[in-house]
Amino acid sequence: RMDTRSMWLYRWYYSGTSQWILSFIIFLILSLAFIETPSSFTSTSDIRYRTEPWNPPCGLTEGVEGLCLLAFAADLSVKSYLVGWAQFRKSLWLLAYLVVLVASFLDWMVSLGLVCQEPLRLRRLLRPFFLLQNSSMMKKTLKCIRWSLPEMASVALLLALHLCVFTMFGMLLFTGEKDDRQDRERLTYFRNLPEALTSLLVLLTTANNPDVMVPAYSKNRAYAIFFIAFTLIGSLFLMNLLTAIIYNQFRGYLLKSFQASLFRRRLGTRAAYEVLSSTSGGAGVRAQDLLQVLRRVQVDGTRKQVVMERVRSHGSGLLSADEFQKLFNEFDKRVTKEHPPPPEYRSPFLQTAQFLFGHRYFDYLGNLIVLMNLVSICVFLAIDADILPRDRDDFILGIFNCVFVLYYLAEMLLKVFALGLLGYLSYPSNAFDGLLTVVLLVLEISTLAVYGFPHQGWKPEMKGLLSLWDMVRLANMLIVFRFLRIIPSMKLMAVVASTILDLIRNMRAFGGILVVVYYVFAIIGLNLFRGVIVAPPGNGSLAPDNGSAPCGSYEQLEYWANNFDDFAAALVTLWNVMVVNNWQVFLDAYQRLSGPWSKIYFVLWWLLSSVIWVNLFLALILENFLHKWDRRGHLHSLSGDLEASYE
Amino acid sequence: RMDTRSMWLYRWYYSGTSQWILSFIIFLILSLAFIETPSSFTSTSDIRYRTEPWNPPCGLTEGVEGLCLLAFAADLSVKSYLVGWAQFRKSLWLLAYLVVLVASFLDWMVSLGLVCQEPLRLRRLLRPFFLLQNSSMMKKTLKCIRWSLPEMASVALLLALHLCVFTMFGMLLFTGEKDDRQDRERLTYFRNLPEALTSLLVLLTTANNPDVMVPAYSKNRAYAIFFIAFTLIGSLFLMNLLTAIIYNQFRGYLLKSFQASLFRRRLGTRAAYEVLSSTSGGAGVRAQDLLQVLRRVQVDGTRKQVVMERVRSHGSGLLSADEFQKLFNEFDKRVTKEHPPPPEYRSPFLQTAQFLFGHRYFDYLGNLIVLMNLVSICVFLAIDADILPRDRDDFILGIFNCVFVLYYLAEMLLKVFALGLLGYLSYPSNAFDGLLTVVLLVLEISTLAVYGFPHQGWKPEMKGLLSLWDMVRLANMLIVFRFLRIIPSMKLMAVVASTILDLIRNMRAFGGILVVVYYVFAIIGLNLFRGVIVAPPGNGSLAPDNGSAPCGSYEQLEYWANNFDDFAAALVTLWNVMVVNNWQVFLDAYQRLSGPWSKIYFVLWWLLSSVIWVNLFLALILENFLHKWDRRGHLHSLSGDLEASYE
Repeated sequence: RMDTRSMWLYRWYYSGTSQWILSFIIFLILSLAFIETPSSFTSTSDIRYRTEPWNPPCGLTEGVEGLCLLAFAADLSVKSYLVGWAQFRKSLWLLAYLVVLVASFLDWMVSLGLVCQEPLRLRRLLRPFFLLQNSSMMKKTLKCIRWSLPEMASVALLLALHLCVFTMFGMLLFTGEKDDRQDRERLTYFRNLPEALTSLLVLLTTANNPDVMVPAYSKNRAYAIFFIAFTLIGSLFLMNLLTAIIYNQFRGYLLKSFQASLFRRRLGTRAAYEVLSSTSGGAGVRAQDLLQVLRRVQVDGTRKQVVMERVRSHGSGLLSADEFQKLFNEFDKRVTKEHPPPPEYRSPFLQTAQFLFGHRYFDYLGNLIVLMNLVSICVFLAIDADILPRDRDDFILGIFNCVFVLYYLAEMLLKVFALGLLGYLSYPSNAFDGLLTVVLLVLEISTLAVYGFPHQGWKPEMKGLLSLWDMVRLANMLIVFRFLRIIPSMKLMAVVASTILDLIRNMRAFGGILVVVYYVFAIIGLNLFRGVIVAPPGNGSLAPDNGSAPCGSYEQLEYWANNFDDFAAALVTLWNVMVVNNWQVFLDAYQRLSGPWSKIYFVLWWLLSSVIWVNLFLALILENFLHKWDRRGHLHSLSGDLEASYE
Repeated sequence: RMDTRSMWLYRWYYSGTSQWILSFIIFLILSLAFIETPSSFTSTSDIRYRTEPWNPPCGLTEGVEGLCLLAFAADLSVKSYLVGWAQFRKSLWLLAYLVVLVASFLDWMVSLGLVCQEPLRLRRLLRPFFLLQNSSMMKKTLKCIRWSLPEMASVALLLALHLCVFTMFGMLLFTGEKDDRQDRERLTYFRNLPEALTSLLVLLTTANNPDVMVPAYSKNRAYAIFFIAFTLIGSLFLMNLLTAIIYNQFRGYLLKSFQASLFRRRLGTRAAYEVLSSTSGGAGVRAQDLLQVLRRVQVDGTRKQVVMERVRSHGSGLLSADEFQKLFNEFDKRVTKEHPPPPEYRSPFLQTAQFLFGHRYFDYLGNLIVLMNLVSICVFLAIDADILPRDRDDFILGIFNCVFVLYYLAEMLLKVFALGLLGYLSYPSNAFDGLLTVVLLVLEISTLAVYGFPHQGWKPEMKGLLSLWDMVRLANMLIVFRFLRIIPSMKLMAVVASTILDLIRNMRAFGGILVVVYYVFAIIGLNLFRGVIVAPPGNGSLAPDNGSAPCGSYEQLEYWANNFDDFAAALVTLWNVMVVNNWQVFLDAYQRLSGPWSKIYFVLWWLLSSVIWVNLFLALILENFLHKWDRRGHLHSLSGDLEASYE
């Protein structure tokens, strides 16, 4: 559709504001999970100490949700209007959007009809879909994952075969009739087929590594070979093969998407040229026409200025296609940010001072001072390690911190003097510094105001929100945080740190997929395992007696806070299972308390999060780093390279 | 040196036999570590049950070692004679070889002089050097590792910074004065700086993941953010960045070494051409000359035949350089192994039978039967899980196995009939099958011979070496093993499996480096920690009371067998630390029993094995797999590609 109204709607829909509003609505509907019953508004999720959470009255979250759903309906109608009915029927994503929206509405109405007492909220499971369909990158990533599924399945099959063969071997090996010790291996890990399979599955993640071999290995060294061979083949070969397969699928992923976006941009430029040149009879583009258009489009201000400048300097002749293209290449260039000029002082003394304090050696001195401050804090931490906090003497540390904060203040002011306020703030590291210095200053002044000047044996009572000790502690933490300013000063570390920053920029799609997976599994877990774990008998305020629980069990390790009783707790529990270490404890506890089928949930989560997602993440890091490395190493202009490849 | 004697020596030295002898001597001197005091010849390394090991008399291992050292001296002298004095002085490896050899001899003499009572055997540490210097691939890999050291150091620095900043944060965060629960976090994990550092270092490997956050998280949900942020940045970002750096260094490693060897070969061919053509006046090579030379060189028989055939067919004209090169390309080609022709039968019945049993559907039937056998074993394992082995009735399983083994025998014979004996053996999968079938048959027959025919309630007493149950068990294990023959039949799995096989071929250098690192660390560990762990009081045959040990400690987990009291035990202990899970238990135990400096040893081992080596291994897998993938996917002849790149 090319009529004026559609164009206006298109512009408005894809403008920054409306996209931002859409993102906010998605965020809002996703974050409802924290508030809805069971709400996560308790200070702890430990079932022994947990207080009754505040539950929102019926209609509050439902009202917000209804508004969100209405917004999505509007979004869908605009989208489908823009793509047209013919496209809409073909687009699976839009159709799914419609279905999900209708299902959510129906479920929402059922909820309201039952006055929020419904046993199951299906729509909570569907919510992550809104996040998914709004990001084209995430859809692309999903497609990539789908492509690598067949090969991943082959490795998974190999893994399953490996697991089964070793399980049968183990069952036949550890039967132990004569000996008490060998029998312990059987009784603990190889009692029956499902248990043996679980033991070896956990060993595949190395989470029960020495333990599973201990009883057998204590009897005979040779049994170690069985376990070592299993881990070697399973964890080292097959798991890494999975990584290789996933990485292979994502190789060139970044380059390809970069190429595609560049290609689309060039195509757009060319189309614009054709349109503009048609007004002047097809021979070229008049500079005035271009200037007129440029004045009306919304793009980044500084670059637009540069391009318009260039167009003006071109004179009144016609622009050829090549020149036109080159002009627009200006938009692709990375702007090297220019710092505002430093203020100019007349007096030679001030000029010398400006040179001194604007020099990078002054930065180094600052870094050194921060380091000294850190060392002083370290020393005090080491000295005070065995003294209880209330007996610590904060006199000297207080004085030290005061002195250092004064130095930071002086440094900031001198730098502002040397570079000018805008010049100072144009460096991100300075802005970071300055912010922390101001916060530290405010903290120090409020400490002085509340507790007075420091003196020997200075241990005032607590006044206001924070005790003196807390104030000092907070100041120390901020100083530690301020220390991070040294990162850009070290060349090698700066490269690595900038890679990480680039990575974070590129991995929004991966993060989004992680959010979707976490969300879905947390909601499922909430429905399956809510209230399954029951607090042990005993007074909440006293540490309950856990002497009776066997070592290594959920109860003995006091994992009470890791449960599925509310959304936030479920997220942390899922994180802990994803990190894999000790996940057999959760496996065992939930198997005991809610049945053996719970294993399926945990194993699925392990596969999705720890196996697939972590490997995906590794692939992304490899891709990003090698991409960057290639650019640095071969010094070839990527853009020029691409030009050659698609022309 | 080009004189006849040197040439003869060169040929003899690089012949298969002498290189094999050298490898064997290296293997011998390395394996001495198992025999020398403290010898590893006990059935278990568990200090509670261990018997006094047999110790070799003084002079036995020393004698073998002396012979080995003499052999190395001969090897060194031949090598240095062949490279010449000028080259020798420049080659660091040869100089180091000399130094190591002299040091070993001196140490050996000291040993003999002290009648094997010396406190420290320095030369045991030096032994892996002999392995290292003998393999050019390992030297190359080491060089690769050295190149990536600067970047690895930058990430390590970042990791250290990350660790330090979070340690200080943690120390300032977990001071807990008012609350008993928050104080538990401090007392357990953040008592003082070294302990906090250790806790977070272990968390970096995720080995104490939920535990370290449990006390704080039980108090307030927000504390989880600290630990999650730490793991996210440390384990996911920085550790994977290390992987990326190592992989980046090893990218193209295989391709490069392949290129280099091809290039050297081409260069050699060209040189041979020049030499041969100079005899005929420089215009070309006479075919007779080439045939004469070919007759005298030692290369693979079948290929030589092919090349000589081609030379003869060329006639008596002169060979140009191009033709000469093409002839020698024959040597680069992969020979596709030809199977011997099947026997030809006259009778049509026999021909039909041959067609039937030579068909691949007959293979599939065999696979199906193996699967059925496996299922039957599984069923019996599941049924008998809760019955003690001595009460199990093996009657039905015995009959089943008998029937299946008879089928396997029939299958083997029919296949031999269809393909001929040589044709049958020319397939590796058939050879594997046949071998296992024969072993199974022997086992079944000996079972019959010893215990007679099976009958209901068949539980004979033990006769000979193995009881009936053990015999059946062994047969079952062999059947499980035989099941692996299905792997090549499944296409996707065959690709993955062949990648793994390729990998094993390519990773000898990596394996060698692992052996070197393990050897050195095991010897150091032996010297540092031998006898540090003392058996708990109590009778060895009774399970000692471990109720008093705190949960999660070395004593409670009964890791007694994981110690450094002999070489084999040290290897297993190092493996367990390398797998990382629960390594904090070893860290803690050795810190308690031999001092805080022991941490350095374990952390160094973790860095070398788990961080560097495992990443190296992953890089190798990625490299291999992608290499293979490229060849399969793009279908470009690598050899042709290389030709273009170096010409």
